[in-house]
Amino acid sequence: MTHNIHITKATESNVSKLDFNNIPLGRTFTDHMFICSYEDGAWQTPKIQPLGMIPTHPAAMALHYGQAIFEGMKATVNAAGEPLLFRPEQNAKRLNFSARRMGMPEFPEDLFVEGLKKIVDMERGWIPPQEGSALYLRPFMYATEPFIGMRAATSYHFIIIASPAGPFFTKRIKLYAETKYIRAAEGGTGEAKAAGNYAAAIRPTEIAKSKGFDQVLWLDAHEFNFIQEVGTMNIFFKINGKFITPSLDGAILDGITRKSVITILEDNGYEVEQRPIKLDEIKEASANGTLEEAFGTGTAVGIAMIQAIGHKDEEIHVSDESPVGQMVMDTINGVRAGKLEDKHNWMVSVVA
Amino acid sequence: MTHNIHITKATESNVSKLDFNNIPLGRTFTDHMFICSYEDGAWQTPKIQPLGMIPTHPAAMALHYGQAIFEGMKATVNAAGEPLLFRPEQNAKRLNFSARRMGMPEFPEDLFVEGLKKIVDMERGWIPPQEGSALYLRPFMYATEPFIGMRAATSYHFIIIASPAGPFFTKRIKLYAETKYIRAAEGGTGEAKAAGNYAAAIRPTEIAKSKGFDQVLWLDAHEFNFIQEVGTMNIFFKINGKFITPSLDGAILDGITRKSVITILEDNGYEVEQRPIKLDEIKEASANGTLEEAFGTGTAVGIAMIQAIGHKDEEIHVSDESPVGQMVMDTINGVRAGKLEDKHNWMVSVVA
Repeated sequence: MTHNIHITKATESNVSKLDFNNIPLGRTFTDHMFICSYEDGAWQTPKIQPLGMIPTHPAAMALHYGQAIFEGMKATVNAAGEPLLFRPEQNAKRLNFSARRMGMPEFPEDLFVEGLKKIVDMERGWIPPQEGSALYLRPFMYATEPFIGMRAATSYHFIIIASPAGPFFTKRIKLYAETKYIRAAEGGTGEAKAAGNYAAAIRPTEIAKSKGFDQVLWLDAHEFNFIQEVGTMNIFFKINGKFITPSLDGAILDGITRKSVITILEDNGYEVEQRPIKLDEIKEASANGTLEEAFGTGTAVGIAMIQAIGHKDEEIHVSDESPVGQMVMDTINGVRAGKLEDKHNWMVSVVA
Repeated sequence: MTHNIHITKATESNVSKLDFNNIPLGRTFTDHMFICSYEDGAWQTPKIQPLGMIPTHPAAMALHYGQAIFEGMKATVNAAGEPLLFRPEQNAKRLNFSARRMGMPEFPEDLFVEGLKKIVDMERGWIPPQEGSALYLRPFMYATEPFIGMRAATSYHFIIIASPAGPFFTKRIKLYAETKYIRAAEGGTGEAKAAGNYAAAIRPTEIAKSKGFDQVLWLDAHEFNFIQEVGTMNIFFKINGKFITPSLDGAILDGITRKSVITILEDNGYEVEQRPIKLDEIKEASANGTLEEAFGTGTAVGIAMIQAIGHKDEEIHVSDESPVGQMVMDTINGVRAGKLEDKHNWMVSVVA
């Protein structure tokens, strides 16, 4: 199905002002945005228009009651300069999973993918060419209705903005196992990509950083022992040759990088167990020498190798090298750059 | 300390268009808003200006990472037509408590109160005169910085908008004790007045309503037995002549109506216990005839009398009459309207 996307082009592009070797991360935006409004019970005509300020009523419900969800994904180019998306249909599905949990309308999944393709095609000049770099895409939805009162809003914006990003700095990270604050508990919104989950994590992350750590290792809300996520990433451990990652328990985000990493590990002959994992088990594996690697996985960073975990007054050593983590990262980057075989048809061309 | 508030008056007022006997609830706003921006590490010159759309960057961090908090309060008039605020310094304090949890800058508490006084003074013509009616005030703060990335924002807006509200419909309510979804868990953001807490509650509230209930009774995240809150209110039970309300455990909002109700009950000779309360205990009290009343307390509704609680396939009968609840409601409304003695100096005049 092809949708009618109304396009208004920017009169001039800002791409010539960008130094691709020195991109201000997170604060550089492309020329256009995709925007579609939900009014009167239906999504209206989608538009691509010059990126600009959006007139927002001070009572817009997203600013008060937090009905706001997002996705994160990356467009890359292959050797021929052709723009590629990575499993965009997975993000479309997850956005709607989040929408259902947060009482928001679902967005048509085919239009989600078509809008992405169209805007990436228009903004192809903004995709950084270096391997490990990408055009970061941010589809998001939020409540726009001006209303004081606690209920689902009746009007929303779905928007896609794009921001070029150089390769992430990939030093090995140290985690702080948090035993006071939580990110999410079962029955809450931890498995949705909801704005409030991130707000909850900001102060604890600042505290972890002030103690010399890079990210928070989130533990369960009951015993502060079961491992959930790390920062905004899922986590994998290699113990005695086998990989383990926390099972999706209702409080953990169903990461698209997570599921891709499971496939890559299995393609390479590794067994991957999805099950509850206690920090106690990681401590024991570190002590008895069977903890071989651990890494975080997520769209923004890709693969983040873990050096150590601080827990109360202890420091749990994880590993000084991550050969399998490196292989996984190289595989994802290679597939994204069109250099390695795309066995599972993850890459989607933005041109028809 | 007196702050320099820069005032731009609306060219004409919309108040003459309002039918005070038929106020569209939650969607009527006064002529002006108070707005103050946080930039470069400091709150800039506060302004009162005509209420209007705010140009918002699509990457404004509140829309993605949910750094957004609010307060709710009401201005009333006494018999002489003098506008009064109810314990505004308590809201100022709680806003800053929320700000600290969410990694946001604190707002000067004296300016919070001064801004409220000034805007209510200007909008005094919008305060509905009927007892039980009020001008609802919504101070709120959200992250405005356009940035893709997970950290505290560096720029914010603090805004106060105002919306006239008639008396709330006060039918007795039926609660649905939720055993799948949670509002908050200890270590999360439940004790902050954070946007994400409300978003989390929207879908469960829709489900409760679809089952014929009015509001959700929130239970703890571990055992789904300890009572937290009801809808967006705190909750009180009268058992065998004595009042009980859940203690502030880190997941429950420290309601200003809650603390005022405790004082009113104690003023009237009732003992009020703040402690963990299991739903099991309420069931037992209902069964043995010692459960005498229950009500929710909050700024928007005031006091909401509870008829019954649904839990799984059971219905727990609470009570068909709420004489003490009614006395508490009449006391709050009477003090707000200047008709009853203000023993605790809760009411604050908006004129110097």
